[in-house]
Amino acid sequence: MSRGIFVGRFQPFHLGHIATIKFALEKVEELVIVIGSAQISHEMRNPFTAGERIQMIKDSLDAEQGIDIKRILMIPVPDVSYHPLWTYQLDIMVPRYQSVFSNDFFTRLLYKERGIEVIQPGLHRRNELSGTEIRSRMVRGRDWKDLVSTQTAKFVDDIHGIERIKAIFMKHSESSH
Amino acid sequence: MSRGIFVGRFQPFHLGHIATIKFALEKVEELVIVIGSAQISHEMRNPFTAGERIQMIKDSLDAEQGIDIKRILMIPVPDVSYHPLWTYQLDIMVPRYQSVFSNDFFTRLLYKERGIEVIQPGLHRRNELSGTEIRSRMVRGRDWKDLVSTQTAKFVDDIHGIERIKAIFMKHSESSH
Amino acid sequence: MSRGIFVGRFQPFHLGHIATIKFALEKVEELVIVIGSAQISHEMRNPFTAGERIQMIKDSLDAEQGIDIKRILMIPVPDVSYHPLWTYQLDIMVPRYQSVFSNDFFTRLLYKERGIEVIQPGLHRRNELSGTEIRSRMVRGRDWKDLVSTQTAKFVDDIHGIERIKAIFMKHSESSH
Amino acid sequence: MSRGIFVGRFQPFHLGHIATIKFALEKVEELVIVIGSAQISHEMRNPFTAGERIQMIKDSLDAEQGIDIKRILMIPVPDVSYHPLWTYQLDIMVPRYQSVFSNDFFTRLLYKERGIEVIQPGLHRRNELSGTEIRSRMVRGRDWKDLVSTQTAKFVDDIHGIERIKAIFMKHSESSH
Amino acid sequence: MSRGIFVGRFQPFHLGHIATIKFALEKVEELVIVIGSAQISHEMRNPFTAGERIQMIKDSLDAEQGIDIKRILMIPVPDVSYHPLWTYQLDIMVPRYQSVFSNDFFTRLLYKERGIEVIQPGLHRRNELSGTEIRSRMVRGRDWKDLVSTQTAKFVDDIHGIERIKAIFMKHSESSH
Amino acid sequence: MSRGIFVGRFQPFHLGHIATIKFALEKVEELVIVIGSAQISHEMRNPFTAGERIQMIKDSLDAEQGIDIKRILMIPVPDVSYHPLWTYQLDIMVPRYQSVFSNDFFTRLLYKERGIEVIQPGLHRRNELSGTEIRSRMVRGRDWKDLVSTQTAKFVDDIHGIERIKAIFMKHSESSH
Repeated sequence: MSRGIFVGRFQPFHLGHIATIKFALEKVEELVIVIGSAQISHEMRNPFTAGERIQMIKDSLDAEQGIDIKRILMIPVPDVSYHPLWTYQLDIMVPRYQSVFSNDFFTRLLYKERGIEVIQPGLHRRNELSGTEIRSRMVRGRDWKDLVSTQTAKFVDDIHGIERIKAIFMKHSESSH
Repeated sequence: MSRGIFVGRFQPFHLGHIATIKFALEKVEELVIVIGSAQISHEMRNPFTAGERIQMIKDSLDAEQGIDIKRILMIPVPDVSYHPLWTYQLDIMVPRYQSVFSNDFFTRLLYKERGIEVIQPGLHRRNELSGTEIRSRMVRGRDWKDLVSTQTAKFVDDIHGIERIKAIFMKHSESSH
Repeated sequence: MSRGIFVGRFQPFHLGHIATIKFALEKVEELVIVIGSAQISHEMRNPFTAGERIQMIKDSLDAEQGIDIKRILMIPVPDVSYHPLWTYQLDIMVPRYQSVFSNDFFTRLLYKERGIEVIQPGLHRRNELSGTEIRSRMVRGRDWKDLVSTQTAKFVDDIHGIERIKAIFMKHSESSH
Repeated sequence: MSRGIFVGRFQPFHLGHIATIKFALEKVEELVIVIGSAQISHEMRNPFTAGERIQMIKDSLDAEQGIDIKRILMIPVPDVSYHPLWTYQLDIMVPRYQSVFSNDFFTRLLYKERGIEVIQPGLHRRNELSGTEIRSRMVRGRDWKDLVSTQTAKFVDDIHGIERIKAIFMKHSESSH
Repeated sequence: MSRGIFVGRFQPFHLGHIATIKFALEKVEELVIVIGSAQISHEMRNPFTAGERIQMIKDSLDAEQGIDIKRILMIPVPDVSYHPLWTYQLDIMVPRYQSVFSNDFFTRLLYKERGIEVIQPGLHRRNELSGTEIRSRMVRGRDWKDLVSTQTAKFVDDIHGIERIKAIFMKHSESSH
Repeated sequence: MSRGIFVGRFQPFHLGHIATIKFALEKVEELVIVIGSAQISHEMRNPFTAGERIQMIKDSLDAEQGIDIKRILMIPVPDVSYHPLWTYQLDIMVPRYQSVFSNDFFTRLLYKERGIEVIQPGLHRRNELSGTEIRSRMVRGRDWKDLVSTQTAKFVDDIHGIERIKAIFMKHSESSH
């Protein structure tokens, strides 16, 4: 059986990720969604915990027609303190895999230095469909819900996620002075 | 929706675990299998990596008739350095849950101190169906395959697991002198 | 007996903190001063070690008329790597408490997410009585001693604290280029 | 002013420790009680959290006639991963001190290698007044309360400490097989 | 025998370092080159691994006429989480030494606070011969090879170092937005 | 150029190690002596710090006729928390190498699982020439000096090593009760 991994931080999980998952499922039989920086949350670039991110992904994919949830695993992986060990850490936290999908810079650089090719899924609507853009809209009170699934939007509301992000942002602005 | 977690180390995944999963799936709609001590491997009591354990579990459950894999998540969680933080670490690594199933001592003690009841699944054939017993048989060259699923047995063979365990055991015996 | 905790970094301990301590001692019988980020020192935002901060606090409170030192504990607590575990870490490092006083953003956010109210002491003379302002004055050679107790001022002199802060600042400016 | 530190693990705090504190207070003006291995709890040799140990000590000393609580500080200090850094970690977590009191092996060895003398308080009733003995009695259901202060005994009861220790012991015995 | 240490990060090893080594070898019989921040790589300010830096240094010094390689040791030392422990960490990772050479800010500040003088080698051609300047030239595609030894230049080429640095820089610029 | 690594803990450095180094230098042009478990010291199985071990090795090899010190590097490497990352950590802490020499169990197991052969040097006088045996003799006051070089023996005396080991052993025996 062929297995692939899709490495990201999913802060938050959005429509671009869903497109990538569909893309990957055409190429591999089983896909492991690796939730990177699993130990980090409550920060500007990483507002959500691993558990919250898994729940966003699970809720979204369960509702998605074209995706067979049985072909998907979700595995949170914490960062390593020695950068070049990151891909080897993936090897020991994840079942054996043959392909890697990722837009994450480090993941691509480090696999490349190991001589392993990383498939970089086409980023359509790249400007909008990025975690950075979505978090920025959340902070500024602009509309972000059309960039994520209904399930993610609902979940963020349920956990008062916007309140958390705004609080982190306010703190962050202060400290920069 | 009701969600439960089943906390164990799964060194290795065996028939007792499958019985517990079936038992738990009668009580909750979704079950998260928490692979504890995720960062440890290549030790007497923890020979297998998190990725290897996830693969054993996935292969076994895929083949199990009575289990709907769509209702199951598998999440590896590393130990925390401050013991009493363990259950709170589970809270942040796992989607929100309502019930806890575990035979693990620490997990039960710590949830109890938080005032949360842990469901201890009946251990049938307890003497045999334990990780300790199985690892002991592996080391001594006695038959262990009837205590695990066909898939786990095959996977352990594939990765030369018995060779690894025997090597660890030999080292371990030496150091004790 | 009622016990409260007052969480801060105390970089350095200043008159605003003393006001808060007096305010808190009106509401609780015993107050634990939690010295946060205890492991950090020799950085722009955290120049002083935990031991140095404890000494500033102890010296200042010993000299303060309106404060009964017997009702006060001082406990340094290091940061946790998983942010949401912070308040639980407090639970295990500190005797049982009923109230929380803090102006620290994270502490307030995380207790709030646990459903625990944090008392935010009124910040009088807020613009001046802040660690940021005091450290900034120290670096720029402007007068800072009227913002702290005589004892803190003396202690900072004793350990050549201004020299340290200026050295850190110079380094910091360099690296930003 | 002269300041001393008294380094121990206080698992649990007992009458021998109180004798040492009285002994030390005759030699120094201020005494810092360093609660070592602060990050460890829920283990055979370290059943109690730092917060619990601080509470035992505080309650006991408040009730002790001959001890002026104003002359005492209590500071929890976690272990360091590099053993020889331990005493230097004390230097940064504790206000400046001139004398060291300890029966702890490592503390004495490491200060000695730095050329600093450690005062080893006379251990009267040594066989009984040791943490090891008290924990052993707790596990075996024998009388331990006459080896600790009334306050420690009461506190251990309040937190169901015997239950915790027995549970840890049972687990421990199991794993040894 | 007199032994000195020369503490730096060597990102990358350049002609200024070689000058310092020659300078130090006139003052001490044996010199330990301490490769600081040994655990960090693949970052803007720290692109190279400890192993890569050691190889640059070894290759360069082997080719250098005026340097007797037998009088030199190279020891990588990872950062400590408590800043003030840094120099004590050096004490335990390095054979006993009598002199310290360093331009590193922290190393100098911390030794000074211990009362130990650090010899700051004259920085000739300081503007050019700095890691910051060299990394900046590497990123911008300007000439950097005349600031390092032939051996370092060749080694950076061999490991596709410029490609790595440019990739890290692009990532870094993105994240700043 | 061909480079090999020789991985051990060197607690302490003994005649068997010297034999291995000579053996390895016949096969490779440059040999890196990897001092494993570099962060551990002051323990029964690991009494000496990395710096002390490096000094033993350096002093011994400088005095050894048949060994060209210019062909040797000594690199201390701390353990990793995830066992299977150990050999990859070596890859990033050490210049590129082609051969591995080691009698260390884990090193051999893990390289083997990567498909890399480890050369196990013949252990002559194995019963005697082992760290375990030597430490045991040190503790029991039996003669150990003929199992190490004159330089190692002298160095252990200089740092009062036997005193340290006996102290650790006494502590260790106590705790086992």
